[in-house]
Amino acid sequence: MSEVTDGQNKKAMFDKIALIGIGLIGSSLARVIAREGIAQTISISTRSEATLERAKALGLGTQYTTDASEAVKDASLVILCTPVGTYGKIAELIAPNMMKGAILTDVGSVKESVVKQIKPHLPEGVHLVAGHPIAGTEYSGPDAGFASLFEKRWCILTPEEGADQAAVERLTEFWKACGSDVDSMTPKHHDLVLAITSHIPHLVAYNIVGTADDLETVTKSEVIKYSAGGFRDFTRIAASDPEMWRDVFLHNKDAVLETLGRFSEDLSALQRMIRWGDGDALFELFSRTRGIRRNIIDMGQEVDAPNFGREDGSSDLDN
Amino acid sequence: MSEVTDGQNKKAMFDKIALIGIGLIGSSLARVIAREGIAQTISISTRSEATLERAKALGLGTQYTTDASEAVKDASLVILCTPVGTYGKIAELIAPNMMKGAILTDVGSVKESVVKQIKPHLPEGVHLVAGHPIAGTEYSGPDAGFASLFEKRWCILTPEEGADQAAVERLTEFWKACGSDVDSMTPKHHDLVLAITSHIPHLVAYNIVGTADDLETVTKSEVIKYSAGGFRDFTRIAASDPEMWRDVFLHNKDAVLETLGRFSEDLSALQRMIRWGDGDALFELFSRTRGIRRNIIDMGQEVDAPNFGREDGSSDLDN
Repeated sequence: MSEVTDGQNKKAMFDKIALIGIGLIGSSLARVIAREGIAQTISISTRSEATLERAKALGLGTQYTTDASEAVKDASLVILCTPVGTYGKIAELIAPNMMKGAILTDVGSVKESVVKQIKPHLPEGVHLVAGHPIAGTEYSGPDAGFASLFEKRWCILTPEEGADQAAVERLTEFWKACGSDVDSMTPKHHDLVLAITSHIPHLVAYNIVGTADDLETVTKSEVIKYSAGGFRDFTRIAASDPEMWRDVFLHNKDAVLETLGRFSEDLSALQRMIRWGDGDALFELFSRTRGIRRNIIDMGQEVDAPNFGREDGSSDLDN
Repeated sequence: MSEVTDGQNKKAMFDKIALIGIGLIGSSLARVIAREGIAQTISISTRSEATLERAKALGLGTQYTTDASEAVKDASLVILCTPVGTYGKIAELIAPNMMKGAILTDVGSVKESVVKQIKPHLPEGVHLVAGHPIAGTEYSGPDAGFASLFEKRWCILTPEEGADQAAVERLTEFWKACGSDVDSMTPKHHDLVLAITSHIPHLVAYNIVGTADDLETVTKSEVIKYSAGGFRDFTRIAASDPEMWRDVFLHNKDAVLETLGRFSEDLSALQRMIRWGDGDALFELFSRTRGIRRNIIDMGQEVDAPNFGREDGSSDLDN
């Protein structure tokens, strides 16, 4: 019933986008950029010959190179999709070849460090607008990506004060075209928010899986067999990419240590409730936490089904 | 192509089974017992009139009462499906009416305490064989149950030394008929194994959701919006039944405190790695934990799909 008021073909939002790194996030971007016709040219760069060959075989881009400084030539949008610890070196490498007026952004999980690493190398006339799509899976590499990864997920942009407004708006439109909602905040606040919503959960998951692996009173086979008691939920994020997560913790040290302090303090209080048999305090906490999941489901950030809708009839212990 | 060698109707394994408590686990048992024809009579007992009415409306049993001592009359199998802290009182209540030769079992998440609570009340000739199906969801109540809950999940029996072997074998057959694999171990070892595979994961999940809720630097709305970064995974088990979990921690105090000590020690080591920038040690741990999830998937205790196979394209942060 709706009228098409514009008979022309949709013009691509960007002439050329360069993706530096083609793992889970980079390859998901390549797929959605192609599907939505967001760029005419998708230039893909990765240092690994084998990964580049894989990207080619998957048909993820229109240009392929192992040299990031080649990839960024004539690109109006350059997106860093490598582990956060690599940004300084890459910025130094690509700076001489970046086009005036181009936007340089990234998808990294920390944002203060990104600005610090890139700023010293940023060429005049290139607009740095750091970003972070809150999306992913526990899988890595170019095969792991999919075009719908960013749908209904938030992308946080952290432009500095005085950032070029046109660049911020263009990047906002880019992420909306990828299916995301877009928010904006300071790098420092981003790093605090993500410390609790992402970095501490990952740290705790890595830790509990490590503890279980080390116990000498319980065998590894027992841990695996009875993991449906709750443990298996933690193994998912503890299966995330090790290099990426090493860099997250090294580059968001202050916020992670601060938030971890709060977590440990609260855990000590909980430990004391158990030791002294304070059932009322335990009940109060366990009741309060139930509401938060309901809110997350209501906000469309989680599936509304028991056990994450696991399809195999597999289930988690609540008894 | 297979021949039916037995033309007779399958004889029910038990004349009458009494379910004391009709929440997630009790109502799932009622459903699978009915579906598989495991008992001729299913007697359902719960203290709450409203819950009993709901069980009736759902058609979960053949007899209904708010009086547990009524329910167990003539039952050859009695299964306690209430929070672990209630067992002593219930055992005292039902003891006078239990049939000689009957099996008394339970589905509780701790086992040493169960034996301690029930033993003093156990009538001569009644066989106590404690049990624990490693199955559940984060939902509670008679509506939350489903007949396939126990399929491919482990059920652990913890018979005492000198337990009646025929009773252990009958109970093993019962759980197999419900779709479970059955294992056996001492109550003490069970409590240690479940401390790491279930109780500490729940405690840590409750704790992190509580910490996030209390932070004054990050708003609750931000925690909810950006929960796809990993946090939302923890909210699932932190949405589990508060009364049940209060009782688990009060009744498995020693093993929980012991295992929590190990967890906290390991977390301190991890905290130190972050503070001192020990990237190699972080990378080593983060690589090691990846293999454990693979094992869990290979053993059929987890779905083999990114993000637990969440169906809405919703996803977790790995970038």
